[in-house]
Amino acid sequence: MSSLASVASPSAEKRVYSFGGGVADGRGDQRELLGGKGAGLAEMSRLGLRVPPGFTIGTPVCAEYFAAGNRLPGGLEDEIRSAIARVEKAAGARFGDPERPLLVSVRSGARASMPGMMDTVLDVGLGPAQMAGLARWRGRRFALDCRRRFITMYSDVVLGMSRKPFEEALARAGSPPPEDALARAVDEMAAIPGGRLPEEPMDQLLGAVRAVFSSWNNARAIAYRKLNGIPESWGTAVNVQAMVFGNTGERSGTGVAFTRDPATGEPRLYGEFLVDAQGEDVVAGIRSPQAIEEMAKRFPEAYSDLLAARERLELHYRDMQDVEFTVQDGVLWMLQCRSGKRSGFAAVRIAVDLAQEGVIDEREAISRVEPAALEQVLRPTFETGALRAAEKAGRVLGGGLPAGPGAASGVAVFTPAEAEARAARGESVILVRAETSPEDVRGMHASAGILTAVGGMTSHAALVARQMGKVAVVGCSSARVDEHARRVAFGGRAIGEGEWLSLDGFTGRVYSGKLATTPPEVVRALVEKSLPLEEAPTARRLLTLLSWADRVRRLRVRANADLPDQAAVALAFGAEGIGLCRTEHMFFGADRIGPMRRMILAETVEERRAALAVLLPLQRGDFAGLFRAMDGRPVNIRLLDPPLHEFLPADDAGVEALARELSLPPARVHARIAALREKNPMLGLRGCRLGISHPEISGMQARAMGEAACDVAAEGIAVRLEIMIPLVGERRELDAQAAVVREALRQVFAERGSTVPFEVGTMIEVPRAALVAGDLARSAEFFSFGTNDLTQTTLGLSRDDVGPVLASYLERGIYDADPFATLDREGVGRLVKLAVEEGRAARPGLHLGICGEHGGDPASIAFCHEVGLDYVSCSPMRIAVARLAAARAALG
Amino acid sequence: MSSLASVASPSAEKRVYSFGGGVADGRGDQRELLGGKGAGLAEMSRLGLRVPPGFTIGTPVCAEYFAAGNRLPGGLEDEIRSAIARVEKAAGARFGDPERPLLVSVRSGARASMPGMMDTVLDVGLGPAQMAGLARWRGRRFALDCRRRFITMYSDVVLGMSRKPFEEALARAGSPPPEDALARAVDEMAAIPGGRLPEEPMDQLLGAVRAVFSSWNNARAIAYRKLNGIPESWGTAVNVQAMVFGNTGERSGTGVAFTRDPATGEPRLYGEFLVDAQGEDVVAGIRSPQAIEEMAKRFPEAYSDLLAARERLELHYRDMQDVEFTVQDGVLWMLQCRSGKRSGFAAVRIAVDLAQEGVIDEREAISRVEPAALEQVLRPTFETGALRAAEKAGRVLGGGLPAGPGAASGVAVFTPAEAEARAARGESVILVRAETSPEDVRGMHASAGILTAVGGMTSHAALVARQMGKVAVVGCSSARVDEHARRVAFGGRAIGEGEWLSLDGFTGRVYSGKLATTPPEVVRALVEKSLPLEEAPTARRLLTLLSWADRVRRLRVRANADLPDQAAVALAFGAEGIGLCRTEHMFFGADRIGPMRRMILAETVEERRAALAVLLPLQRGDFAGLFRAMDGRPVNIRLLDPPLHEFLPADDAGVEALARELSLPPARVHARIAALREKNPMLGLRGCRLGISHPEISGMQARAMGEAACDVAAEGIAVRLEIMIPLVGERRELDAQAAVVREALRQVFAERGSTVPFEVGTMIEVPRAALVAGDLARSAEFFSFGTNDLTQTTLGLSRDDVGPVLASYLERGIYDADPFATLDREGVGRLVKLAVEEGRAARPGLHLGICGEHGGDPASIAFCHEVGLDYVSCSPMRIAVARLAAARAALG
Repeated sequence: MSSLASVASPSAEKRVYSFGGGVADGRGDQRELLGGKGAGLAEMSRLGLRVPPGFTIGTPVCAEYFAAGNRLPGGLEDEIRSAIARVEKAAGARFGDPERPLLVSVRSGARASMPGMMDTVLDVGLGPAQMAGLARWRGRRFALDCRRRFITMYSDVVLGMSRKPFEEALARAGSPPPEDALARAVDEMAAIPGGRLPEEPMDQLLGAVRAVFSSWNNARAIAYRKLNGIPESWGTAVNVQAMVFGNTGERSGTGVAFTRDPATGEPRLYGEFLVDAQGEDVVAGIRSPQAIEEMAKRFPEAYSDLLAARERLELHYRDMQDVEFTVQDGVLWMLQCRSGKRSGFAAVRIAVDLAQEGVIDEREAISRVEPAALEQVLRPTFETGALRAAEKAGRVLGGGLPAGPGAASGVAVFTPAEAEARAARGESVILVRAETSPEDVRGMHASAGILTAVGGMTSHAALVARQMGKVAVVGCSSARVDEHARRVAFGGRAIGEGEWLSLDGFTGRVYSGKLATTPPEVVRALVEKSLPLEEAPTARRLLTLLSWADRVRRLRVRANADLPDQAAVALAFGAEGIGLCRTEHMFFGADRIGPMRRMILAETVEERRAALAVLLPLQRGDFAGLFRAMDGRPVNIRLLDPPLHEFLPADDAGVEALARELSLPPARVHARIAALREKNPMLGLRGCRLGISHPEISGMQARAMGEAACDVAAEGIAVRLEIMIPLVGERRELDAQAAVVREALRQVFAERGSTVPFEVGTMIEVPRAALVAGDLARSAEFFSFGTNDLTQTTLGLSRDDVGPVLASYLERGIYDADPFATLDREGVGRLVKLAVEEGRAARPGLHLGICGEHGGDPASIAFCHEVGLDYVSCSPMRIAVARLAAARAALG
Repeated sequence: MSSLASVASPSAEKRVYSFGGGVADGRGDQRELLGGKGAGLAEMSRLGLRVPPGFTIGTPVCAEYFAAGNRLPGGLEDEIRSAIARVEKAAGARFGDPERPLLVSVRSGARASMPGMMDTVLDVGLGPAQMAGLARWRGRRFALDCRRRFITMYSDVVLGMSRKPFEEALARAGSPPPEDALARAVDEMAAIPGGRLPEEPMDQLLGAVRAVFSSWNNARAIAYRKLNGIPESWGTAVNVQAMVFGNTGERSGTGVAFTRDPATGEPRLYGEFLVDAQGEDVVAGIRSPQAIEEMAKRFPEAYSDLLAARERLELHYRDMQDVEFTVQDGVLWMLQCRSGKRSGFAAVRIAVDLAQEGVIDEREAISRVEPAALEQVLRPTFETGALRAAEKAGRVLGGGLPAGPGAASGVAVFTPAEAEARAARGESVILVRAETSPEDVRGMHASAGILTAVGGMTSHAALVARQMGKVAVVGCSSARVDEHARRVAFGGRAIGEGEWLSLDGFTGRVYSGKLATTPPEVVRALVEKSLPLEEAPTARRLLTLLSWADRVRRLRVRANADLPDQAAVALAFGAEGIGLCRTEHMFFGADRIGPMRRMILAETVEERRAALAVLLPLQRGDFAGLFRAMDGRPVNIRLLDPPLHEFLPADDAGVEALARELSLPPARVHARIAALREKNPMLGLRGCRLGISHPEISGMQARAMGEAACDVAAEGIAVRLEIMIPLVGERRELDAQAAVVREALRQVFAERGSTVPFEVGTMIEVPRAALVAGDLARSAEFFSFGTNDLTQTTLGLSRDDVGPVLASYLERGIYDADPFATLDREGVGRLVKLAVEEGRAARPGLHLGICGEHGGDPASIAFCHEVGLDYVSCSPMRIAVARLAAARAALG
């Protein structure tokens, strides 16, 4: 871009930026100032692409507009008039000219794409005085079509009237309407009461500009900003541009295209177009469009220009672009260009392809893939067998466009409100709509999948679903949706609210009922090895991308895994160790729960030791399996953590059964369970408190670790053991448990005549642990931040209880994010930072990691990188996400 | 003391310090070096009081002794020999001399008094070779008596043998034993197998010194140190002193005395003595002694010397002293002097008296009274009516010495273990013992009252009970205690384990059954005004002391009070405002719980508003009462805080009844209660979360406050309203609730046409609130630290659930103190400090207070002073304690 000479240096005071005819005041890197659309138009002009002339009113004016009480700031009108004069010159037509009128579009354009959230008015400048001239130029039908579009949009957007009477007037005229009927419909529309439709072109223009600014604060836009974390202060720009007409007849049309396939990333032009239509018709998904390749036949020149533009734009922007264009009388005009939204599959493929094509380097490839995108690649598909059975059973209801990859089953709902309500109750829902609009966004967010009857791959439903990572099938033309009756009919087959539907977001097929899912390609190739890597291109690309990430990241990535098979999955995704093995999960197996309960119900230390002796070999076997699987990588094992009542039955029948099984009086079992009952088990007898009350439990666990380590080491496999004491808040707690652990290991090593290296450390999961971290580090060889519990205690918020509170807090903007998903930097993060600093100051070699859910969340991983942790630990299926996020954090 | 010339400047290397004959190497202010006893002996020598010559081996030698593996450090033996030579010179007798042998006592003496915890050996230097000479000097019976005492004590203390065979041998000799029988008993004792009894006096001495050092680490001493927070590192000194003999016959005796009455503080010599006895006989409480006044008849000269010593010591030490003495052949010898332990009553009286006598100033008077001592003054007594009825019903079992003031009812227990076990179950227990010994200390701690059959006001039971603030009756001679059968008989009336007993610690009477109590004098005079102040000397003294405290303290003292009558109590004790009014307590009244439940069970906002409308006037009345009572002092009212299920019945019957009452289907009530059930209610839907979900509740409460404030202001009474938002962790929570509150008040003020000043602030009770305090202070006009919840969340410890954990942690020394009683400085305190600093930095005028239980705990109040809070708030009955503690904190 630096090779382009600047037309006019924008000054701080400048508010209006012209573009078109191979030059522009603004540049493509001025998104903050010009908004995305304005920046794209400016840059395409500079690149020499054919762009209708126009100008952009910069985003700072938006704030001025609101500050002035929804009024255009002084002087702006004059600047607009000057800019219009420049457009007139470039377009060879005059705004308001009754003979050959210049019409303009007025569109919003924020820094971040907010598709369909704000308003647009087309055909501005077409008053009654201009109709005759326009009709002379392109025919009366065309003039009437433009006029009805203008009246409808202006009445809706600027005057705030309902669209319904306008649409009804059009419908009454017939389809397609005879010219006279259309003329009557236009007259009828102009007479619909509710607002003053200005006749003067400049009044129309200023009204439309005001309306676009105002639309920044409409309810939809506010909701979208909240959902996507877009600050209110950014504001929108306004783009005023000479109209080009895709609706002049069969030699015209309009379309949208991606420079690569946004679902798969395949490197080919991908898009849709509509003949004899304006842009709004495509984006709204009202008419089903044609595939872009069809343009080659209809508009060969325009298509060839479009392919050339694809090359030009991709090389220039070094990324996949999403463009809008219009063909007027066979000539291609570019109307928009921006980085294209893409599925997770496409994100990986495009980044890897571009890097391998030499367009970008590896580091840039990493920065191009949002870690969350990988989740899509890891998403399950329907089982082949289940699909065949469903097809054989005639459960295929229809097919549409596969707009959001993945497989989703859920109960059908027909309103966004119902989707939210049922999702809040934990149900999986499929939102079924004729088409979606911005009002549906929250309902879509709450749904597992989205099905629409109308619209293409670039319709609102498709764009939003892809961005949210939702499974979506759009344009399912066989579906007749009755939102009022809450029913969808596929031919003779109707599905009502609450009935199960399944959507295949890879094939676009829709099934009745619930279908079994199967692991994604990546899992089959890397974990199950049921698919050769040669046949798994996504897995190959993922491995390539992650290998680049590994060269960049500083944070190590470990897995939270309790059993050898989980460890195997983690290793397949590149885990470098186990960051958290929760030993309690080992006690729930059929062969363990009995002795575990006997241990808990023991009345003497001897009885307890006898029960522990039964558990010892089982634990030893578990640990040995982990050590073998991890083959020399560190394995961090936490001592028993949860309150004991979690291992006991809660209901009377269970207690009776347990009493019989253990040959104990039921009253004794009841009494023991009652004694273990707690008002706030989160804050009760658990973690190291349990180990301090019952050191024999910790002793048994440490012995099992030591024996397993010696066994596996004797097989020639390296073992790196880390033993973690949970829920510590005071160094003396840690010391007491560490002494038990070290003594047990000393005994084992003496018995075996060999030793295995080990470290003893602590979880930091209550605020006090962080506050006395300097002291704890005198005894602990490592810290592992248990940010789940640390979040609960720091915020005083039980994850089990405050689901509704959290939802309402996010809704009201009291919390910016769910603190259990994304680490709360100001509160919990401050404690973590403090513990890192004071822990390292007390023991420079202290190892630091995180093992809460946050260890797999990209934003939280960035925090972990910033504060200098050594590793993050997350569930095996998030290892890939974490590797990428760690690399992106390192790139800053 | 500075007026006394130093005899010999003690150097760093010096280990042995001589005293006696009007001079001393050491001084009274060298307790760290010489221990309490050694310092007292040195100082009494310097004051010219008659002290048997001797020397003190300094406390640092104790550490040397243990470091050397329980061996006396090199060179010490020579120093001891030199010191003995100085004693011989002063005493005019030689150690080991067969003709006229010098005998010595060997006693422990730590920096802090640890009565009876460590060991003593008397009559050291009396081997077989010295018997004949001693018999020639004072008769054969005396020599035999000394010898049997020496053998018994040495065998017990130094050789670690059981006392029992020695006591049995003595008993077999008859009582009193004929001289020949005594001689045979002594021979028998010397032959009891179990250890080598040295014959050489110097071997005896060195053995005794070693035994005293060793006793620093006996189990009793360790338990006592833990209970009283005495560091292990202090060590004990050893005092070796020429024996004087209270057991030479009728012209001799031994006794203990206080320079003022330790129970009441009355300024007169108070004590007891035993004729023809050694000191151990008094302290052990084995024989019941005579009142000190009796000495005037028996030993007029010695008594007159003792009165003179009283004057001399009180003026010199400027405090009440506790002395031990022996009269040998009519001559008074002082053996010990230290500040005397006293009851709370005596502490107040002595401090006030000494200040009014001009001996100390007001500031020193404040520093002389431990705030906890005031609790005793505020302790209830038995109701006069109940006492009369009990007496009429013949329920008086007996009488003893009123060694610990107060009134206690509890079930009788006969072993310290049983006392602890029942107390742990929440029972009130009275520990009944023939006499107590150091092994009983933990059981005494667990008891509400202590009853002994034997022993005087200075017996072990009396001393320990007073120090612990326990109700105690000692020396109840009519009681026959059978500890084995777990029964005590008073004449024909037997009380078994588990039967109720009542002890009057003011009169010494013992009653069967449970007696109703009545408020203490202070409460009757100040709160109930049922007693004229002229007839309430303790109340007058308390007011005097507190008025001095008020001149010194910087911290304001407020009360936690929910109702006007509580506010009145608080005011009577000098509360300067209300620091916490918990509005939820107002909803439990019979007239409120109905509408409250209706409000909770409401299904629509309208239903809820209707129920709130019923509650509004009730709350308004409550608040008006508080404002009137507090008469212009600040009143801090907290919005509804607890989870709603606390207001609903928990059992099926209650639910059915409620459903009938509200004419609701029981299923609906059940369902609502189930929906409100939480796993961890502490961390659930409560505090501001409730107010944010149901702003109409906060609105009603704010309206009630505003209306009440306007009503009371209209009566001409000033109102200072503070409104507190609970459980805030994020500024936007506070802002949301503050907006509701401010809007409600704005409306009320508009309706009334008047305004009342108010502030809106927040509790700091979850760690995050402290961590973002700087941000909160942008919205909060005050912070109130809710350290109960802050402790629970910072430590991750539920007060409701972890009683056993806490007990075990205190026992094992993992916690130094109960963090719910005394603020945890390292953890919770660090958060408080951080919030104070960052809150004040953001808003310099921020008001800061504390309203957790810690607000009434002296150690925590000192912390509040240090970190610069503006006030503490505590329960009304602790206001006096807090005023005194605040003053002591200010004195540093």
